[in-house]
Amino acid sequence: MITTDICIIGAGPVGLFSVFEAGLLKMRCHLIDTLPQVGGQLSEIYPHKPIYDIPGYPDIKAQELVDRLMEQIAPFDPGFTLGERVETLVKQDDGSYLVGTNDGTIVHAQVIVIAGGLGCFEPRKPEIDGLLDFEGKGVEYMVKNPEHFRNKKVILAGGGDSALDWTIFLSDIAEHVTLIHRGDTFRGAPDSAEKVHELASSGKIDLVLQSNLLSVSGNGHLKEVSYVGRDKVNITQKTDYLIPLFGLSPKLGPIGGWGLNIDKSAIEVNTFDYSTNVDRIYAIGDINTYPGKLKLILCGFHEAALMVQSAFKHVYPDQKLSFKYTTVYGVNAF
Amino acid sequence: MITTDICIIGAGPVGLFSVFEAGLLKMRCHLIDTLPQVGGQLSEIYPHKPIYDIPGYPDIKAQELVDRLMEQIAPFDPGFTLGERVETLVKQDDGSYLVGTNDGTIVHAQVIVIAGGLGCFEPRKPEIDGLLDFEGKGVEYMVKNPEHFRNKKVILAGGGDSALDWTIFLSDIAEHVTLIHRGDTFRGAPDSAEKVHELASSGKIDLVLQSNLLSVSGNGHLKEVSYVGRDKVNITQKTDYLIPLFGLSPKLGPIGGWGLNIDKSAIEVNTFDYSTNVDRIYAIGDINTYPGKLKLILCGFHEAALMVQSAFKHVYPDQKLSFKYTTVYGVNAF
Repeated sequence: MITTDICIIGAGPVGLFSVFEAGLLKMRCHLIDTLPQVGGQLSEIYPHKPIYDIPGYPDIKAQELVDRLMEQIAPFDPGFTLGERVETLVKQDDGSYLVGTNDGTIVHAQVIVIAGGLGCFEPRKPEIDGLLDFEGKGVEYMVKNPEHFRNKKVILAGGGDSALDWTIFLSDIAEHVTLIHRGDTFRGAPDSAEKVHELASSGKIDLVLQSNLLSVSGNGHLKEVSYVGRDKVNITQKTDYLIPLFGLSPKLGPIGGWGLNIDKSAIEVNTFDYSTNVDRIYAIGDINTYPGKLKLILCGFHEAALMVQSAFKHVYPDQKLSFKYTTVYGVNAF
Repeated sequence: MITTDICIIGAGPVGLFSVFEAGLLKMRCHLIDTLPQVGGQLSEIYPHKPIYDIPGYPDIKAQELVDRLMEQIAPFDPGFTLGERVETLVKQDDGSYLVGTNDGTIVHAQVIVIAGGLGCFEPRKPEIDGLLDFEGKGVEYMVKNPEHFRNKKVILAGGGDSALDWTIFLSDIAEHVTLIHRGDTFRGAPDSAEKVHELASSGKIDLVLQSNLLSVSGNGHLKEVSYVGRDKVNITQKTDYLIPLFGLSPKLGPIGGWGLNIDKSAIEVNTFDYSTNVDRIYAIGDINTYPGKLKLILCGFHEAALMVQSAFKHVYPDQKLSFKYTTVYGVNAF
């Protein structure tokens, strides 16, 4: 049995940074993730994609951010159980928990932090003929490595940030990019939407609005995609890849049975310590929700910092936490 | 007159990052700061000090963080009025504001964001004989450049993070470091407190607990500091510098008269958008307070991200914001 102060479910960027904040308060962490490596979606899905909204990094590749976080938390020597899925949670008489995985690993912890991110979700698939036959054979629900699409014909579908971001990104890499969207306006960042319109105006991509996917076909590998085109005429277009980006639907798994308050697809928390309705269980990062919630990594970092202050009282019930670690205050509290 | 969407009072790290988040929503910002350069306390007080709790930076010098943030916001072309102090705020009939400075600059903005950090505070000074005579002549309330103390004798006083951090940092630079603290235990990070005790045990610094400063003396420049030493015996010790680090007291200036709800030394805000009690005025970073508040730069970044979502409705009252810009969601919302 592994014994720790805080058991963190999910080793994505927010779970990792929690180790740092906990470490400053002398609390040790053990992280469990179903993926075989740390970094969550950043390492698994888009390690090579640059991201732009990490404060202080005008531009950083997702995997590099993960590497930096691992370096940052190394002094606090966290434990890791990777490639295993959390299955059971058993409350002990003293309030602590035993967490069990599908592989039989047992972790005893005073506090549980769910930082499952989007790992608890699965892609929403369009209901069109033939789709399932070509999954992994031309139909992709995520872009793990953009290089995979170099000099290929690609059709993307969707109207959110993901569709916009990848359309922009792949327009420089693919031989040809078509973006198909059901609506007239995009749900994604206005800035990105504007860029996509510019790319379309300059003829660098094809943009088809008020359109719907109809079917896919091929021979072992995807060859053609049919959709409603301009002027409501059905079009069949040759392509190497179809990437439908229609969001995620929840797949909470065993966590769904722990008695946590769930709102739509996320765990409800307080904003003063990101605690859930269940004693000693916290939820941070993309998996939680509260008034004003934004699914940003930088928000998860903030949530981690406030969470550990509250977790402290369970780990050290007899100690008073009178603590303000902060860059500005810490140095400037003269 | 300068016209902008958001007028940000304070050009520290949190004010700067707000420009990025606002820019993603197509809102322009103008920043005003009393300091002659951007970066707030980071650039003014400890540009050379490494900081450790910026997520993704195991270690970054304060000035480098400011430089990176400036690079990150450059695409959004913010305006700056530096070296001027905000003095007046006049509400217009349409709900917008005119902000005026001591130098006569007028900024017309739809939304005001107070990101004044600790710039609205001043050092708390110990009440001991002779102190004022030696300010700037051996008595320092902040460490602007640690190199200033190389091979010098330094006495620090205080029990918070600042006193601990600088004691640790200067122990490698100064000829001799003494830390004087009124109590038995430290208010600062347990990790830092432990390090200070280790330095004392190994004889690298002198640590004097349950002690109080009594007086300072010298001849043009500080020469000696007297304090209550071990076993309640008064000690007079030769030194080159005394650095009292006893925290800050509020000096809100004109902002104090704007009708904002103030709790102790900070502006009360909501946690769903970091708005104050006054319409269209927000407060983010170290200057605000709410349940669970931590004075961390990383928390200010989060506050900035949520704030702009709310500010949007004042800047674009006719537009619907259906927007989730986020690294993970943005890329992975397939």
